[in-house]
Amino acid sequence: MEYQFSERFRGLEANAIRAIFKLLKSPDIISFAGGMPATECLPVETIKKIADELLSGPMATSILQYGPTEGYAPLLESGIEHVKRVGIDGIDKENIFIINGGQQGLDLTYKAFINPGDVVLVENPTYLATLHILKTYQGKAIGVDSDADGINLADLEAKIIAHRPKLIYLVPNFSNPTGKTLSLEKRKAIYDMLVKYGVVLVEDDPYGELRFVGEKVQSIKSLDKTGHVIYVCSFSKLISPALRIGLLVADKEIIKKVNLGKQATDVQSVTLSQAIVDKFLRDGCLEPQLKKIIPIYGMKKAAMLEAINIYFPASARCTNPQGGLFIWVELPQTIDAVKLMPKAIERKVAYVTGNAFFADGRGQNTLRLNYSNATVEQIERGIKSLGDLLKEEPGIKE
Amino acid sequence: MEYQFSERFRGLEANAIRAIFKLLKSPDIISFAGGMPATECLPVETIKKIADELLSGPMATSILQYGPTEGYAPLLESGIEHVKRVGIDGIDKENIFIINGGQQGLDLTYKAFINPGDVVLVENPTYLATLHILKTYQGKAIGVDSDADGINLADLEAKIIAHRPKLIYLVPNFSNPTGKTLSLEKRKAIYDMLVKYGVVLVEDDPYGELRFVGEKVQSIKSLDKTGHVIYVCSFSKLISPALRIGLLVADKEIIKKVNLGKQATDVQSVTLSQAIVDKFLRDGCLEPQLKKIIPIYGMKKAAMLEAINIYFPASARCTNPQGGLFIWVELPQTIDAVKLMPKAIERKVAYVTGNAFFADGRGQNTLRLNYSNATVEQIERGIKSLGDLLKEEPGIKE
Repeated sequence: MEYQFSERFRGLEANAIRAIFKLLKSPDIISFAGGMPATECLPVETIKKIADELLSGPMATSILQYGPTEGYAPLLESGIEHVKRVGIDGIDKENIFIINGGQQGLDLTYKAFINPGDVVLVENPTYLATLHILKTYQGKAIGVDSDADGINLADLEAKIIAHRPKLIYLVPNFSNPTGKTLSLEKRKAIYDMLVKYGVVLVEDDPYGELRFVGEKVQSIKSLDKTGHVIYVCSFSKLISPALRIGLLVADKEIIKKVNLGKQATDVQSVTLSQAIVDKFLRDGCLEPQLKKIIPIYGMKKAAMLEAINIYFPASARCTNPQGGLFIWVELPQTIDAVKLMPKAIERKVAYVTGNAFFADGRGQNTLRLNYSNATVEQIERGIKSLGDLLKEEPGIKE
Repeated sequence: MEYQFSERFRGLEANAIRAIFKLLKSPDIISFAGGMPATECLPVETIKKIADELLSGPMATSILQYGPTEGYAPLLESGIEHVKRVGIDGIDKENIFIINGGQQGLDLTYKAFINPGDVVLVENPTYLATLHILKTYQGKAIGVDSDADGINLADLEAKIIAHRPKLIYLVPNFSNPTGKTLSLEKRKAIYDMLVKYGVVLVEDDPYGELRFVGEKVQSIKSLDKTGHVIYVCSFSKLISPALRIGLLVADKEIIKKVNLGKQATDVQSVTLSQAIVDKFLRDGCLEPQLKKIIPIYGMKKAAMLEAINIYFPASARCTNPQGGLFIWVELPQTIDAVKLMPKAIERKVAYVTGNAFFADGRGQNTLRLNYSNATVEQIERGIKSLGDLLKEEPGIKE
């Protein structure tokens, strides 16, 4: 039959990353797409041991029975401890909520705030899923200019005044897709704007713990005394993405709405996943895990940056992130990264085309490279293939 | 600050069951609210053994790494086998999708179909979460009359003609809240109406496997040759609710939209949960599990029915379900189950007020009793307390 689907998916195509997900499973493709943690960084043995202990212990039946929508009580407690790492202190259980990975935090936030036509300001470029989710609520993303150290403050203020946004969305640490990090000064200036103009910020922080150089910067939420910031973090990149556990920290009025939204979608997150993450944190497994994985990511980033310097044409420019999972590449304006993609796939290399990250569809000449999921040998080989391909494009200067 | 929340939650209160969830954890309350499986029916040892095997085996890293939105490939296969139990045959991987419990199937379906103002026809009374979810999409639920054997066909047809619904929502087996089951003849007549009027049915089947008397009736989806039925089932009541795994079976065009919707909310379901359910099915654990739990539920239902007959006033009427988790009680019109609730809680007994299940807020004199999660002794004691309370109400005939 002819189905009459809802308007909210009109013009919405599959998320650019999810759409190429199947390709990435092919063993002969070197994937710089996706944002998967390194397979060798997944703490399989620790999780196995923890799962066994949990399912042998006194909490086993309650781990398999229905639990509260807001989350497994022990994880709410250990989550309160966890966010102290980014300077968020003095919150209680009414300010924290367990989500199925960071992305559900964005979805539930937009669900709580966005009516059709409402504006969300985003950095240009920004995390593509935020654009995708926002479309399902028929909200409008408006891009704000980006400097080398993140969002441009003058443009942000001008666009707050011009568009009266419901929300601002930012990834302040090692931004997806650019790898940029906001300075503390910029964070303070942004918080002041939130208060001045009465706007709520969604601070998305999936990568903040993955810093291989430089000093940690406190979260914008840690500056928040007025309830203007919703902080979202995730254990996907630190422990395991397929456990689907993240935290959302916000004013209790917001948490109540988020709770209503979650009741209406999936009732609760998987308790076994929550209990595994909780015990991982309580058993002190996070520090050793970070000590193991951060140098691996630092080494892979260095390998990719070096390979880009060697193999890419001199006219290509890229970011040099201090942490996280991504390098952002700007090619000369004459190159179309979307048209280049099938040729890259022919040569067994995948990336994400940069235009998917722009609120206004710009960025045809950009691409996002992920370095966490490939081996150093694959990084070298894949970047060489991409570089060779780029140098064959007409009008490219070596 | 004053938050400007979205319109979609306006007038939406916490789900009646979730709202009393915390009460139910209190050890001295006998809960006939909720729809929790019996704690003694949770297959803790089997799940522990399976989790250990999975995390020790060759799939361990892929179980912890990102996976496809549509689901863990082995579970898509074993799900295709599983739905043959309800007569659904000849489907392939493009027709099946893994959801975070049955409720996410409803949410993603409404997301795919419902624009503000769109009508969904539901049995009156119906599963309260379907009403709750529909409100978040600003859709409109219209109740259809119910007979002793489920939805009234004449009223259904009249309301299809009058309201041109986008969807019809039904729980054909041991309906939540009434415990009623649709005959095969009624199922066929409903399917014919779907085709005649071009309406899509959401067939929600969380309890179908929990039949303690009578013969299994094939699903409406098994009659569907035209793509008019979306079938949703869940392992929450069969294995464990906190694993949050269900299946959605539909035409591939619908699955594509559901996939887009899930990409935009939580990316994927927890792979460890999916792998546990898959192995549980493949290892042949479901049949012994059903053989264990069905007699327990049958025995608890019988105990509750007997206690109602002994302790409730003669003017109270109740259903006698052939399976599932719920008995539905109609009290004399003079009794208000909502006003009675605080008194019941004082006497340490909880139920769900029936009006929460009506699209039009009727049913003040009704209540839903769950018998799966209490012991037989608690059932006897709790029903006696409720019966004593009812008999104290003015105007009640013994």
